[in-house]
Order: sequence, then C-alpha cells, then structure tokens
Amino acid sequence: MALEIERKFLIHGMDWKNAATSCSFLRQGFVSIGSIGVVRVRLIDDQGVLTIKGPTRGAVRLEYEYEIPVEDAAEMLDELCIRPLIEKTRHCVPFGGLLWEVDVFVGENEGLCVAEVELEQEGQQIELPPWVGAEVTGDPRYYNSSLVRKPFSRWRSEKTDR
Amino acid sequence: MALEIERKFLIHGMDWKNAATSCSFLRQGFVSIGSIGVVRVRLIDDQGVLTIKGPTRGAVRLEYEYEIPVEDAAEMLDELCIRPLIEKTRHCVPFGGLLWEVDVFVGENEGLCVAEVELEQEGQQIELPPWVGAEVTGDPRYYNSSLVRKPFSRWRSEKTDR
Repeated sequence: MALEIERKFLIHGMDWKNAATSCSFLRQGFVSIGSIGVVRVRLIDDQGVLTIKGPTRGAVRLEYEYEIPVEDAAEMLDELCIRPLIEKTRHCVPFGGLLWEVDVFVGENEGLCVAEVELEQEGQQIELPPWVGAEVTGDPRYYNSSLVRKPFSRWRSEKTDR
Repeated sequence: MALEIERKFLIHGMDWKNAATSCSFLRQGFVSIGSIGVVRVRLIDDQGVLTIKGPTRGAVRLEYEYEIPVEDAAEMLDELCIRPLIEKTRHCVPFGGLLWEVDVFVGENEGLCVAEVELEQEGQQIELPPWVGAEVTGDPRYYNSSLVRKPFSRWRSEKTDR
C-alpha cells in the first residue's frame, strides 16, 4: 500500500522557473474514472507507469504505482484511454526542504498551471513558496481526471458565454 | 500489446476432473468495469496480478497483464474492488493439444462451471472435449465482470420467481 498525501496550489507568475532543477514531459490518460477511484496510464519522457488510485479523502488517497513497458503505455494511451489525454510539462522545484512539482498544461488544458507537493503525513506543516496562490487541494475541478471530462479551455469559454 | 483470443463453454458432468493436471484458487475483483474495458486484480494462490482488458470484439480483446506484489493485490481486493468478489477454483485440463481451464465458481457464483481455452488466432480449428456443452463465447452474462453485477445465484432466483 501507498498513501498519497498531497496539497495543490495555483501559481503566481514565473519566479518558480529560475529555481526549477529538472523538467519532464508527461502524456497521460485514464483507462477508467469511477466512483471507487481511477486507473491512470502515464508516459513520463520514455518511461511507462500504471497507477491505481482509490477515492480521495481530504488530502489522502490509496495509490498503487507500477512501471510498465513503454510500448504498453503508449498503446493504452492510443487505444484505451478516455479522450482528451492530459499533456503537461512537469518542473521539479525544491523549496523549504520539499520537492514541489509545477505542472504546466498544454493541449486542451493550456493556460492551467498548478503546483503540487507531496507530504509524509496529513497536517504536516509546510513553508509556502512566494509563487503559489490559492490552495485547490480537494477541489475536484483540478483533479486530472476532471480535466479530461472538463478541460481548462472549456472553463474559460463558459465564463465568456455568461 | 497482447491480444487475448479465447472461447468459453459450459460443462457437462465431471469427466474433466480425471484429466486435470493442476488446480489453483483464484480470488479476483474489478477496480473498474467500464465501456472501454475492465481493470482486474487477481490473487492466484500467492501471486498478485493486475490486468487491463480492452473492449471485447468477438473472441478477441486487448489485454495487458502485470505481476504485482501480493500485498497490493490483497489490499486492492479488500479496499477498492467492486462487490462481490469472484472466487473460483481453476483446474488445468490438457485436451487435443490445448490447455483448457475449467473454472468452478464458489461464493455468490456457486453452481457455475465453465471451460475456457485460449487460441493463437481467431477462427483456429479446435477439437472439443466430450465434457463441454453449449458455447458461451461472447455471451455477456458469463463475463466475470457481469458475474459481479449479476452473480449466478441470482440468475436462478429470478427463474424461480417467474
């Protein structure tokens, strides 16, 4: 078992970029998005990863992650995963003794940029970087599985329509 | 990629049992059952297996299978999988140059017994053992995912109700 405990924030400006130590391109999709959890396939540069996530309870969820052959991951993304796929560049940014991940989305979620940090325990005290804004932990609109069903580009067009 | 090509039959009597060369106990569940496919977790004796299956087209479907830690499989079965779980004893029965698998269900599917044989290609000629009855390949009632939603024990009670 692994328990995933993470917090998620919106981003202010680009100051995080100078502190970024690495970046990778993620192409990911969901084989299923259900009430029990999600099954995610990821291509991280040239690595394939299959992840089963349980239901979210606050900032905590059960998570099982396995490396799989890159050809399997690519084929599942092409043949099985729900459309649209999620595509984003992930930048690793060390801050306050923790490793923050800044995700810059492209494709149908272009314009969205969020920072995530993984914690060792719920309620753990953390120092917030100056470049993070509002916390969106637990806001279902920002789940990657929600960004498949309602990509960020459609949030804006709905606002314009009003 | 793996393409799974298999045919499934009902069983007549117990003559298959004398020819069975091995048997194992399977406890399995589904993390998701969707229109795109299913995500299955299996405990086969003391081995854990995670399987992603695409949609069925005739006797063929995309299938990806990975061995996972037995503790993960047990926990996913306990915590994440849709109820009821499927429990069955699988007997391996060589016949006509092929390996037949005879599944004897217990629990909520007790009374159901089916034989499956995996083929190398669709349309492959096979010799049928004398102990198989009607073919049920492609009959969705006999999918293991259907046996979760509508276990065999409930088929009989519905017949009795009429």
